[in-house]
Amino acid sequence: MPKRSRADLSIPSTTGVKVITFTTDFGVSDAYVAQMKAAVLARMGRSAAKLQLIDVTHDIAPQDVIGGSIALERAVAAFAPRTIHVAVVDPGVGTDRRLLLVQSRGQIVLCPDNGIVTWTWRRYGGEARELTWLPTSSSHTFHGRDILAPVAGLLAAGRSPLKLSRTLSGPLLLDLGLAVGGEGQVIHIDHYGNVMTNVAAEDTPAGATVWVGRRRVGPISRTYGDAAVGGALALIGSAGLVEIAVRNGSAARALRLRVGDPVRVE
Amino acid sequence: MPKRSRADLSIPSTTGVKVITFTTDFGVSDAYVAQMKAAVLARMGRSAAKLQLIDVTHDIAPQDVIGGSIALERAVAAFAPRTIHVAVVDPGVGTDRRLLLVQSRGQIVLCPDNGIVTWTWRRYGGEARELTWLPTSSSHTFHGRDILAPVAGLLAAGRSPLKLSRTLSGPLLLDLGLAVGGEGQVIHIDHYGNVMTNVAAEDTPAGATVWVGRRRVGPISRTYGDAAVGGALALIGSAGLVEIAVRNGSAARALRLRVGDPVRVE
Amino acid sequence: MPKRSRADLSIPSTTGVKVITFTTDFGVSDAYVAQMKAAVLARMGRSAAKLQLIDVTHDIAPQDVIGGSIALERAVAAFAPRTIHVAVVDPGVGTDRRLLLVQSRGQIVLCPDNGIVTWTWRRYGGEARELTWLPTSSSHTFHGRDILAPVAGLLAAGRSPLKLSRTLSGPLLLDLGLAVGGEGQVIHIDHYGNVMTNVAAEDTPAGATVWVGRRRVGPISRTYGDAAVGGALALIGSAGLVEIAVRNGSAARALRLRVGDPVRVE
Repeated sequence: MPKRSRADLSIPSTTGVKVITFTTDFGVSDAYVAQMKAAVLARMGRSAAKLQLIDVTHDIAPQDVIGGSIALERAVAAFAPRTIHVAVVDPGVGTDRRLLLVQSRGQIVLCPDNGIVTWTWRRYGGEARELTWLPTSSSHTFHGRDILAPVAGLLAAGRSPLKLSRTLSGPLLLDLGLAVGGEGQVIHIDHYGNVMTNVAAEDTPAGATVWVGRRRVGPISRTYGDAAVGGALALIGSAGLVEIAVRNGSAARALRLRVGDPVRVE
Repeated sequence: MPKRSRADLSIPSTTGVKVITFTTDFGVSDAYVAQMKAAVLARMGRSAAKLQLIDVTHDIAPQDVIGGSIALERAVAAFAPRTIHVAVVDPGVGTDRRLLLVQSRGQIVLCPDNGIVTWTWRRYGGEARELTWLPTSSSHTFHGRDILAPVAGLLAAGRSPLKLSRTLSGPLLLDLGLAVGGEGQVIHIDHYGNVMTNVAAEDTPAGATVWVGRRRVGPISRTYGDAAVGGALALIGSAGLVEIAVRNGSAARALRLRVGDPVRVE
Repeated sequence: MPKRSRADLSIPSTTGVKVITFTTDFGVSDAYVAQMKAAVLARMGRSAAKLQLIDVTHDIAPQDVIGGSIALERAVAAFAPRTIHVAVVDPGVGTDRRLLLVQSRGQIVLCPDNGIVTWTWRRYGGEARELTWLPTSSSHTFHGRDILAPVAGLLAAGRSPLKLSRTLSGPLLLDLGLAVGGEGQVIHIDHYGNVMTNVAAEDTPAGATVWVGRRRVGPISRTYGDAAVGGALALIGSAGLVEIAVRNGSAARALRLRVGDPVRVE
C-alpha cells in the first residue's frame, strides 16, 4: 500500500459533497436503516449539510452474503472516487469476525470480514485493512449501527482511514469469481427475473452461444427487443456480464434458473 | 412553445435547492436505483451539495406503463416548479423508441416515449421535446442510468434543456384520460386497497351517487370516518378524483375491483 | 412546561443541518411518501439545502398503531436533539381526532393523537401539545401531506412550535408499557423474525431465564453466536430490551410467536 494510495483514501472529496451508500439485509420494515443513518449524522456535525445518503438495497435475503457481495459491487462500479459504502450482511455479528475498511476503485467499503467484499475484490482488486475504531459502548448484535455507521460518518467528516484501521494480510474471500474458459454460473436473479452470470463481456466473443444446461439461448443479442415478446435471449447486461433474459418476462421463471446453475458460453 | 416558457425550463431554482424524483419499475432488491443516483451525482459536481433525491416509487409492476403514469402524475402534482422527474418503465429499452423531455406545471419529466407521461399530460398539458443528448458510451438495456439520469444531473447543474433536446410533434399517449359524462373506470388500486377512478371532483356534483357494476356505493362522503368500520364508501380522494374505499379495510378486496373496471357517477 | 424547555424546541439546530424522519403505513407502491416530502420542501425555501429526509419505515401494517409506535420510538432513540419525526398511522383521519406536537428527548414528534406516541412516551416521557396550524385548504383523507408535513417544514425552517400548537392535558396512550415484575409480552417481530419483548435490560438480572409459554429459552446470552446455528436464545437486543432469537433463523417462526404473546423473565 504505497503512500500516495493512502493519501487518496482521505475524505471529503474536492467537490465538498460526501456520498455514503448502504447495502444490507435489514429489510425496510424496522428502523434499523434509519438508526444507521442517525449514527452517521451524529459523527458528522456541520459537514452533514453536504451529505448524500444513498440506499443501494436493504432487500438482500437475510444472511445471504453472496447476494450482498453482488449488490455491493454494483454500487462500487457506479459511484465516484471517495464514495463510502457501508455493507452489512452479518450473520457473525458478536463473534470474533473482524470488521474491514477496504479501498477499491478509489472508494471505501466498510463491512464485516465474511466475504461480502469478494465480488468487488475480484473485479477491481483493493487494499483491505482491519477496523480498529471502537465506540465507548456497543451492542453485541448491531455493529452496523454501533461501529460501521459511525466510522462512515467519521471518514466523511474528514478523519483519516489510517487512524481507524490497521494493516491486514487480506480479507476472507468466497468461492465466487469471474468464469474461466466460458464455464460459468448464475450469480444473481434480478427484480425482473433477468439472470446474471459470472461470464464477463470481454471473455465473450462476438456471436458466442450461451447454454444453460442442455438449453441453447441464442447467440448474444444486443438488447431485449431483439427477441419476440416472451422469447428468451442472452445479452451483455448493464453490469458488463452475460445475462439471460426473456423479453417482457422473467427468464428465471421461464427457464427455471437459480443462483449457482451452470452456464456455458462458447 | 413561446420563448418565455422555454426560459422557465432552466434549472436551478431561485432557492438554490434542486429536487430530482424517481418513478420506476426497478424494485428495490437490486442496485439499479442507486446506479441512477450515482449517474446524477456524477454530472452535478459541487451543485450536488444542495440536491434532494426523492424516491416516488420503484414498485410499479414490471413494464406497467399505466401504473407508472399514475404515480408520475401524483409526483408532478405534488412538487414545485423546476423539479425534475425521472420516470423509467421502459419495456422498449434498446429499440428505436424515443426519450422525452416534457415540461409540465413548470417541472421537467424525463422518460421514454411510451405513454408514461400520459396522465400528467391529460391533467396539466405540457410541451414535449425529444432528448438528443447521448453519453460517449451506453448500455442497450439501461437508458435510465446511461441517459435519463445523467441528463437530470446536467439539468440540475444548470444546463439548458434546449441544448439537450429538439422539437417533437407530440408524445405517444395511452388511451387513458378523465371520464366524460360520469362514465369512468378504475385507474389505480393503492397500498390500502383504496380504488382510484378517473372521475374528477369537478365533474362530480354534490350528492352524486357512485356505481361499480350494479353495486351502488354511497353518495359521495366526506372522509373514511363517514362509513362504519368495514363499510364501503365513495369520496373525493387526495388526488382530486372519486375514490372508493372501505373504512379500515381494502375496497379492492371487499368489492373485487381491478384496474379497468367500469365506474359510473351520476 | 417551563420556559427553558419551550425554547429548546426551536429548530434549526446549531449545526445548521435539519433532519426530518418519516414513519408511516403508506407502503412504497404509491406516491404518498414523496407527496409528504414535497410538502416539507414547499415550506422550507432555501433552508431545504441543508435538509436530511430520512425514511424510518413505511411498512407498518395498515392502521397498526402499535407497530408504528414501536418504530417511532426506535427513531427517537437513535436521532439527535432537534430532529423532527413525522409519524402517520392514521385510521381516524378526517374524524375529530386531534393532531399532536410532542417534545421528547429534545426532539419533536408530529402525529395523530391516536396512541402512536405511546412507546416513546413510556420510555422517555415528553410534553404534548395540540397542533393548531391549518393550511388554507386540506383534503379530508391525507393530513400527513396536508398538515403534518407542512408543519415539519415550517419547524425545520425555524418557526416556533409554540405558534403552531396549544397546550393539551395529555396525549391518548395505548395499553403498552414496560413489563413489571418480569411478566411481559412480545411487542414486535422484526424482519429477521427476532422477537422483541417489553422487558427492559435494567429489569433483567444477570443469569435471568426467559420463558415463552412453557418453553424455557436460555439464560440471557451475549450475542447470536452463543447459540448453535438454528438454536434459540434470549439476549439483550439493540433496543435495550429482552429479545428472543434463533441463530441464523427466525425465532417467530421456529417458536410460533406473535405480538401479544406472554413472556416471563425470572
